[in-house]
Amino acid sequence: MSKVFFDVAVSLDGYIAGPNRGPRNPLGDRGTSVHNWMFQTASFRKMIGLPGGDTGEDDAVVRAVFERSGAYVMGRHMFEEGEIGWPEEAPFHAPVFVLTHTPREPWPRKGGTTFTFVTDGMKSALEQAKAAARGKDVRISGGAATIRQFLKAGLVDEFTLHVSPVIQGAGVSLFDHMAHDDFKMEQAQVIASRLTTHITYRVAR
Amino acid sequence: MSKVFFDVAVSLDGYIAGPNRGPRNPLGDRGTSVHNWMFQTASFRKMIGLPGGDTGEDDAVVRAVFERSGAYVMGRHMFEEGEIGWPEEAPFHAPVFVLTHTPREPWPRKGGTTFTFVTDGMKSALEQAKAAARGKDVRISGGAATIRQFLKAGLVDEFTLHVSPVIQGAGVSLFDHMAHDDFKMEQAQVIASRLTTHITYRVAR
Repeated sequence: MSKVFFDVAVSLDGYIAGPNRGPRNPLGDRGTSVHNWMFQTASFRKMIGLPGGDTGEDDAVVRAVFERSGAYVMGRHMFEEGEIGWPEEAPFHAPVFVLTHTPREPWPRKGGTTFTFVTDGMKSALEQAKAAARGKDVRISGGAATIRQFLKAGLVDEFTLHVSPVIQGAGVSLFDHMAHDDFKMEQAQVIASRLTTHITYRVAR
Repeated sequence: MSKVFFDVAVSLDGYIAGPNRGPRNPLGDRGTSVHNWMFQTASFRKMIGLPGGDTGEDDAVVRAVFERSGAYVMGRHMFEEGEIGWPEEAPFHAPVFVLTHTPREPWPRKGGTTFTFVTDGMKSALEQAKAAARGKDVRISGGAATIRQFLKAGLVDEFTLHVSPVIQGAGVSLFDHMAHDDFKMEQAQVIASRLTTHITYRVAR
């Protein structure tokens, strides 16, 4: 059955992006530093149309996340930033359901990405994404507020944190405003590379 | 040569203790949850005078930290909380140097722990601890403010985070008020157990 997951890189102090974020600075100041392990992988480079790159643990992790993702759900802010920043061939190559209050016709892009705009809430978006995923998993892409919204609603099955050896100091904190009892989890898998530690947690139901 | 390190359990959202901490509640509300992996190890139980316990990855980690620690440096708050909470045979079994502004005679305890009160600053405490460690390593025990003070001064060689599958939501945040450029690090070792992920970082000089 289709699982619902999210997958983010975090700094040691829990930030997924730096300060001063905006459409022209989607990762925030110094926000690339938590993604250094990913940028150099062959699978990431291929996703954005570049040749070469490292093959190793980190690459296998990136490839597995890409291959399991049959559809995506994302928040409006992430879409609006991406609409400016992503290349014409958007890096999803699968259906993407965007949570918004503004109706808009579906927007197909080169390479298999179609953005569908969902105005009737997160559960509707998730149902549509599950149907579109054809047995693969649904990835909650982000941003942080959207991920927290799905976690608090008990709609996430598992998640992976790529813990990067960086102090961000300020920015977008993944678990900001989450409380001890919002959800419980157990550790499911740990993969260590030279640059980062990939930890997967199963959310307890 | 004697290394300077710290070693703390953190929640996924970066807290080393829960809210409402005080002398009678040293780990704060629900603060024990980030230490569950440790409480059940044979080495921890032995340290506080209890029999039995698990032997496995987590136990090996606890034992290694205890065995490498030739001396300790701690802040005044941690000492004052411990002075009430620790048993007569304090769990260090080694010299402990307490940073304080209030002079006091050394206080020897059963089992090899002697608390020495240092009023002339962190560097003095560290020098005394290094001399007392007789070639073993010096552990900066805590609390968080003391650890940050040593990190910012460039006096830490490496540190281990035991990343626990828990959201704390509030409390004492380890890297609070640290900035991106305060220190750089690289990942040195990752040990995964069923309950937690132990990640050791080397601080770049």
